[in-house]
Amino acid sequence: MRDSIVRKLLPLNLQFAICNYQFAILAVAFAFAVTASPARGDEGMWLFDNPPSKIFKERYNFEPGKAWYEKVQKAAVRINHGGSGSFVSPDGLVMTNHHVGAGALQQLSTKERDLLKEGFRAKTRAEELKCHDMEFAVLQSIEDVTAKINAAVPPEADAATAEKARRAAMNELERESSEKTGLRCDVVALYNGGLYHLYRFKKYTDVRLVFAPEQDIAFFGGDPDNFEYPRYDLDMCFFRVYEDGKPAETENYFSWNAAGPKENELVFVVGNPGHTDRLKTVAHLEYLRDQVLPDSLERLRRMELLFELFGERSKENARRAKGGQNGAANGRKARSGGLAGLQDPAVLARCEANERSFREAVMKNPQLRKACGDAWEDVEKSLAAWDAIYDEYDMLERGSGFHSRLFGIARTLVRLTAETPKPNAGRLREYRESNLDSLKQGLFSTAPIYKDLETVQLADSLGALVETLGFDNPTVQKVLAGKSPKARAAELIAGTRLDDVAVRKNLAAGGLAAVEASDDPLIQLALSLDPAAREVRKVYEQKVEEPQREAYAKIANARFALYGTDSYPDATFTLRLAFGTVKGYKVGNEVIPPWTTFAGLYERAAEHDNQPPFHLDERWFQRKSKLNLNTPFNFICTADVIGGNSGSPVIDRNAEIVGLVFDGNLDSLLWDFVFDDAQARTLAVHSAAIIEALRKVYDADELADEMLGKQ
Amino acid sequence: MRDSIVRKLLPLNLQFAICNYQFAILAVAFAFAVTASPARGDEGMWLFDNPPSKIFKERYNFEPGKAWYEKVQKAAVRINHGGSGSFVSPDGLVMTNHHVGAGALQQLSTKERDLLKEGFRAKTRAEELKCHDMEFAVLQSIEDVTAKINAAVPPEADAATAEKARRAAMNELERESSEKTGLRCDVVALYNGGLYHLYRFKKYTDVRLVFAPEQDIAFFGGDPDNFEYPRYDLDMCFFRVYEDGKPAETENYFSWNAAGPKENELVFVVGNPGHTDRLKTVAHLEYLRDQVLPDSLERLRRMELLFELFGERSKENARRAKGGQNGAANGRKARSGGLAGLQDPAVLARCEANERSFREAVMKNPQLRKACGDAWEDVEKSLAAWDAIYDEYDMLERGSGFHSRLFGIARTLVRLTAETPKPNAGRLREYRESNLDSLKQGLFSTAPIYKDLETVQLADSLGALVETLGFDNPTVQKVLAGKSPKARAAELIAGTRLDDVAVRKNLAAGGLAAVEASDDPLIQLALSLDPAAREVRKVYEQKVEEPQREAYAKIANARFALYGTDSYPDATFTLRLAFGTVKGYKVGNEVIPPWTTFAGLYERAAEHDNQPPFHLDERWFQRKSKLNLNTPFNFICTADVIGGNSGSPVIDRNAEIVGLVFDGNLDSLLWDFVFDDAQARTLAVHSAAIIEALRKVYDADELADEMLGKQ
Repeated sequence: MRDSIVRKLLPLNLQFAICNYQFAILAVAFAFAVTASPARGDEGMWLFDNPPSKIFKERYNFEPGKAWYEKVQKAAVRINHGGSGSFVSPDGLVMTNHHVGAGALQQLSTKERDLLKEGFRAKTRAEELKCHDMEFAVLQSIEDVTAKINAAVPPEADAATAEKARRAAMNELERESSEKTGLRCDVVALYNGGLYHLYRFKKYTDVRLVFAPEQDIAFFGGDPDNFEYPRYDLDMCFFRVYEDGKPAETENYFSWNAAGPKENELVFVVGNPGHTDRLKTVAHLEYLRDQVLPDSLERLRRMELLFELFGERSKENARRAKGGQNGAANGRKARSGGLAGLQDPAVLARCEANERSFREAVMKNPQLRKACGDAWEDVEKSLAAWDAIYDEYDMLERGSGFHSRLFGIARTLVRLTAETPKPNAGRLREYRESNLDSLKQGLFSTAPIYKDLETVQLADSLGALVETLGFDNPTVQKVLAGKSPKARAAELIAGTRLDDVAVRKNLAAGGLAAVEASDDPLIQLALSLDPAAREVRKVYEQKVEEPQREAYAKIANARFALYGTDSYPDATFTLRLAFGTVKGYKVGNEVIPPWTTFAGLYERAAEHDNQPPFHLDERWFQRKSKLNLNTPFNFICTADVIGGNSGSPVIDRNAEIVGLVFDGNLDSLLWDFVFDDAQARTLAVHSAAIIEALRKVYDADELADEMLGKQ
Repeated sequence: MRDSIVRKLLPLNLQFAICNYQFAILAVAFAFAVTASPARGDEGMWLFDNPPSKIFKERYNFEPGKAWYEKVQKAAVRINHGGSGSFVSPDGLVMTNHHVGAGALQQLSTKERDLLKEGFRAKTRAEELKCHDMEFAVLQSIEDVTAKINAAVPPEADAATAEKARRAAMNELERESSEKTGLRCDVVALYNGGLYHLYRFKKYTDVRLVFAPEQDIAFFGGDPDNFEYPRYDLDMCFFRVYEDGKPAETENYFSWNAAGPKENELVFVVGNPGHTDRLKTVAHLEYLRDQVLPDSLERLRRMELLFELFGERSKENARRAKGGQNGAANGRKARSGGLAGLQDPAVLARCEANERSFREAVMKNPQLRKACGDAWEDVEKSLAAWDAIYDEYDMLERGSGFHSRLFGIARTLVRLTAETPKPNAGRLREYRESNLDSLKQGLFSTAPIYKDLETVQLADSLGALVETLGFDNPTVQKVLAGKSPKARAAELIAGTRLDDVAVRKNLAAGGLAAVEASDDPLIQLALSLDPAAREVRKVYEQKVEEPQREAYAKIANARFALYGTDSYPDATFTLRLAFGTVKGYKVGNEVIPPWTTFAGLYERAAEHDNQPPFHLDERWFQRKSKLNLNTPFNFICTADVIGGNSGSPVIDRNAEIVGLVFDGNLDSLLWDFVFDDAQARTLAVHSAAIIEALRKVYDADELADEMLGKQ
């Protein structure tokens, strides 16, 4: 199982915290050399150590001081399975999206009590429910370690040597910093390798569920309205972080602005955008369009149907499959939108023109030409190397052929016990010393695993393995062991005992010897598969990743030389600051307003006879007369966000909460590879709607009072 | 648009009569040389001119006379869009499945009246509803024309010459016979080219809807129960054929046996199995497993989701998308089952062993070795030729890149006006003189076309075209005309006037000149695409189809020489006689009974809280006390059927109706390529259940009386 970094990249809305191996879907998005021009409009996912202060001052006459940045940084929360949040009280209360909390909600549910569907309210702190494996992190500091990392790589080193040296330097820097500070430390490559920053986080692992509305209102409109606007979603969820069994004291938190934003007001979004590819080459973009995205979409559709059909068999099946189904559906819609953008000749022409002018500028400058002239061809070569191992890497290493959480656990045990005896510098990245605590939190999670669902998932993905690598492939033959995919999956899942956390802990404690001696069929499968999987991973790291890192570093440096450093790097699931204004847009002659209201919610439900996915729970009708129907519900702004920003607070100049980001509209799906704010918008729940609903629909005055500081 | 032959191959259950171009899905199924042994158990889809009389006599002591066969043949109805039926009264009353009638039901529906969902009952003949484009056919005679067809092909002709000569001979034989008899005449290749038979049909085109239950009971259990047993489906629909505005007099019809069959009783199934591949080579089978089926499944999943997501947007959308969605879902489940079978190493090993022993016998016989020894390699070569053009043929000619009924109409107009001026002998098969009436019935059908649905279908399939052939492919570039797939589809569908039948008729009447002068964007697209599509079709016909026909003819002749002619050919959507006994089976220690009852239906609905897809309409509860709950509902038998047999009558020795075939169980999905009756079963609605439901749930005594001859 790759570490959680692979999951955080799920798109904005509905990135369920599914611990599915399969959810290690390729980080699919796009990029292109918009580098020839500085950021346009309200573009940018800016670093906290290089914020767009000049733009703030010139365009908005806003000069936040150092204290403003520091407070905002430390009141923001990263939800490590893939999302954002914020502290909204001094007592560790965290606000995020329902769809970010959905994984935790599902894990806390049983056949008798479906929290994902029905919602939850802790009336007192004693009733708050401890989650199985949530990890929240707060960024404490950033250090530029580019020189240190690059110094570790010998000059003229070949890619294999360079990759190993760089990995060793990163693993060790993280370990040292982690030991020194006691914080979670991650080295992150920015500008696809142009810069390396060391991020230090304070971690919270005792996370408790405080409040969630029912899914019908959190995801009102379902797939038809997903990534659309106007919208009517109360996509919120509240957790509280604990330390030593008590609510954590969080001095940095956002106060609440219950009035919300005005039209055209400047607002900010603080959060962790997962992945963009705005700085990649056109050839890279074309490879995403022609291979990566179609392949990813095919698997997402297959997965979506699989979950849906499993769910149709009974109410309990539906409950078990719901998270996976929503996640796959959301990914499918997001990627479809991205692919549609790349298939638009006009978009591609723009990318090509930008790249051309940038390359021409490089070629005219002898120094840059020498340093960077080959970089585009180097990227192309890396893509050819990727293409040669695409299916094998995807199936064997990324796990598309083994879509099962239990298989993921088996592989993690096999690798954990093989890697940890090695020196930290030489380990696979996810087994580096500084990551082990987080990795083990997932590995030993007590979250329920459903063998019936695991069986159909594994059967289907073994079928995909046969289809993709071919029936006669020796690895495939070894995996099937003379049986059909269906029979083999049934045998493997029925026979494994890895659903028992104690069994996992025993194997981990027993080390490689215990793992090798185990007769657990999934452990045996993971062991027998590991040489082939590691081999293809090595090829990927040395022939694809490392050459790309080197080529993009050259491109980034050329960009800095030509256009200066007033820019932002592609998204990397690290903390960023985006900004924009609250405003509507036009589609043809139609004016799309900047916000919707509760009244609109009831109208939309009525249009659809209150039938799913436009169904409102009974309580919304019972309380309708109490509600101020003119309360703004969802609003839009031009701030630049992407998947991973889900749950980000929208704040005003006073660093007070005015909204909660939960989605983008269809046009914003293009933001994966180019920013444009003609029609593309970020969607947020309005701060007034949150209070209104908490008080009048859910009777949750205790929560509203806490957020408003009225305790 | 290919002629209807491509659609008839949809799998057994739910082959909606969708006039979608896309439904020209590759005839996907399997076959292998089980030839080394004669038919096993109750195997066989036997020809009416070569029935298994010896087996009937020896195994069942049953000797039906010539009159029995003739009556049975002429009381059977072929439903030309893809299904079977039977006359059940002397007044032209035809019984078939709800899922066979579904296309007609949907076409007759409007936003206000959803017949597919709600059902329909004509209380009097005056209330019977005329269908838009149904064609029913009754087989009158069979003539062996093998010698004539083969004589037309010059000895030593190359494949291109042979293909043309064979096509000319078939087109002309059909035209001559058709002119002489006034009947619909089709030449059919049996044993994949070993024999050619000329079939003559009496055609009925004035077809009226008499009765259909609501879909909830016809398809009770939905996808979870599709291809499963025990089962509880009232999958029936009744039509009446008219001649000269009056009910047709049908002297050959089946009487009703209201008691139904006994356990272990011998029964017969008369109908039109669409396509099997039991006689194909192992290499062919592997190509189906590795390329054809996975590709087909990918498109079916994509289509299923597309319809479903479109349907989620509103109730009316759901109504419009329902037929396509059910058809795609059914195809997906059927093909998944088939592929799972082929991915089972045990199944493949059996196929290989059979082929090996057959080939060894051929090689030991010098004459056979000379005549047929190369045939297996020839099939392999044809598969390599197919593989080289697979995507292009699929996208451009079979229409996977243009999933739109309106585009299908455009292509048909372009080709109709180009082909009909040519001599009949040289035309593309579907434009042969004898097929024009049927082709025009579809082309000028008044069935509604929904532009909103057409737009999303075309956009999605243009996206698939880009993904499959590549963005830079010149044909793709021509199709997109500088726009994104979505924008191009919107422009094409908004701009076309082909949804107006009068426009189609004018263009057809105006001939090629009118078509070429038309500024209709879809006509222009079909015109510009036609050279490329025809070219790849020519390659397919000459390098794939014709070599296969020749190779399989050699294999068939070797088989006749070694094992005699007491055999049956692969299914070809022509009339066949199957037989078997009514019996249950064992799964492990569990005994699966030969039939279910109405009581079981209510129990299953209750298990699922009467929620879809296990929902029973209110009327079933209102009338429950009237029903005899012990009435058998669905039963199973070992008769050998496949997709296309849907709607076939199950009859007893007296040629009386005891049931109505509507599905097979999961194990029967293997019958595509090998028969086995350990657990595989054909599913039918029991004759007693039909009468009980008509009288007590639907108050349709007039219909029950007509079937029981009590008028």
